Amino acid sequence: MSVFTPVSESQLAHWLKSYSVGTLAALEPIAAGIENTNYYVTTSQGCYVLTLFERLPAAELPFYLELMAHLARHGIPCPAPVADLADRYLSTLNGKPAALVTRLEGASLERPGTPECAELGALLARMHLAGRSYGGYLENPRGPKWWRFAAQKVMPFLDKSQREVLENEIHFQSRHRFAELPRGAVHADLFRDNALFQDRRISGVIDFYFAGVDCFVFDLAVCANDWCLADAERDRRLDAARTRALLGAYHAARPLSARERDAWPVMLRAAALRFWLSRLFDKHLPRPGELVQVHEPEHFRDILGLRAAAPQAPWIA
Amino acid sequence: MSVFTPVSESQLAHWLKSYSVGTLAALEPIAAGIENTNYYVTTSQGCYVLTLFERLPAAELPFYLELMAHLARHGIPCPAPVADLADRYLSTLNGKPAALVTRLEGASLERPGTPECAELGALLARMHLAGRSYGGYLENPRGPKWWRFAAQKVMPFLDKSQREVLENEIHFQSRHRFAELPRGAVHADLFRDNALFQDRRISGVIDFYFAGVDCFVFDLAVCANDWCLADAERDRRLDAARTRALLGAYHAARPLSARERDAWPVMLRAAALRFWLSRLFDKHLPRPGELVQVHEPEHFRDILGLRAAAPQAPWIA
Repeated sequence: MSVFTPVSESQLAHWLKSYSVGTLAALEPIAAGIENTNYYVTTSQGCYVLTLFERLPAAELPFYLELMAHLARHGIPCPAPVADLADRYLSTLNGKPAALVTRLEGASLERPGTPECAELGALLARMHLAGRSYGGYLENPRGPKWWRFAAQKVMPFLDKSQREVLENEIHFQSRHRFAELPRGAVHADLFRDNALFQDRRISGVIDFYFAGVDCFVFDLAVCANDWCLADAERDRRLDAARTRALLGAYHAARPLSARERDAWPVMLRAAALRFWLSRLFDKHLPRPGELVQVHEPEHFRDILGLRAAAPQAPWIA
Repeated sequence: MSVFTPVSESQLAHWLKSYSVGTLAALEPIAAGIENTNYYVTTSQGCYVLTLFERLPAAELPFYLELMAHLARHGIPCPAPVADLADRYLSTLNGKPAALVTRLEGASLERPGTPECAELGALLARMHLAGRSYGGYLENPRGPKWWRFAAQKVMPFLDKSQREVLENEIHFQSRHRFAELPRGAVHADLFRDNALFQDRRISGVIDFYFAGVDCFVFDLAVCANDWCLADAERDRRLDAARTRALLGAYHAARPLSARERDAWPVMLRAAALRFWLSRLFDKHLPRPGELVQVHEPEHFRDILGLRAAAPQAPWIA
């Protein structure tokens, strides 16, 4: 259940008067999502998603909305924020910061194949290229600083073996910072459920609320660790064909430098660490009133162990 | 034939490298259009229209492109310019100013009915509301100043009766300027062939290259004189039901003031004058090398005569 703040039809019909999207036809709550209240909104003009921001720091919201607007006007199929009559993307509804974005067609895939991983790689490269001219700045809120903060918080809840792995990995990563790697605005959470497909093409990338500025190759590693597993339940090594498809298609649109290729094995570990930590945090330190289905942290501990035990070459010819 | 500047697939494939819309899949010239060279472009990302600007003054192009971008991000279904990697809407191809815009679905209607006129009225009102926050400024290039210029140029080609009507109307309009009427960015050329319909809803408004800042109610009068004729060939009086639908739907979304209603009969004449003049101009003073099918000017002289003989109330309850 992700409707933290109910919105009535009459409230919304009134609120929509400050937009040029026509009159309200239908309003439907969206059950998915753990951070915000979301509704599907249909008007005489089109189909939208209404988001009421429940937890994100208000100061960060313009970064996300302007990034989506920037990418959309560069042709990236992401939700485009709709500006209101005062020319703002961010408004207020029921006391919460609120935004209306376009609704994209398509559905996410649970088991993407090689062609879908190639689609993703090409789109991710185009997103990174388009994002280079984006002027907003927000350091990845789940970057190395946050790792150290979160590790300290979750440490008391871990057993000895977990503590050792976590301490070792934080130390390992601190010795492998890549200040010289190409950076820019990255999605940083492009799991399978955040990409929509239609007719075997990517029709949308959604949920930019973990975006930030980080290494492009980190974004790619986040994708590989979710899209390219041999078997998400039983064998979390990278499947060679799908990983090659992801990296090859990315490389064709935005060539990876020698430094980025060198960083690849470390980035796969960094990406696993980031999600292991956030899942540990959500499990052991749930926020008050949170009714969220906790994802199993050990999925990413397993990935981290596998990536550390067998460093992966980037598989690019 | 509207391809004045041919573009090859290899030229375009190279040009598209400075965009984040993927790789070229297909290129198809568009036969319609008299001012620019247009192509349908399909890439691995989506469907677009490429325009090479042949005649429009370069200084005016940002007004049109930024207006389309402004309206699109307010939810108006118009072509959205795609920004290139340098974050510009306007680029150069084959020595011509060039832009890539999204391609909209739908088809124009030759005989719109009452519901379609209502659709148009509501959308036009939303466009005007969304356009109020647009910062660009370009006085309508086919406004009163241009009428006087064009009248002087075409006068030698007219017979006595035409000259009298033209002189009288220019004089009449000069006594009825409405400086106090609400103004803003208007399309100013929203004829039936510039609106696309799909499933009986307006899916697109295209061709913004006659847009400018003028009275909102002038824009509405341009529409009425094309969409609401009793019979475009035989009876150019306004059909009451379709005119009521157009005005009523507009009024529901953006209420017309008493002054705007008072101005309506004059605006219908102004809108007829503007197109009578431009058609006379194109017929008698064709530009060198122009291979344009000339529209019959007397269609609008007839409309002008009818609107002057029987002033129209705005038909709003």
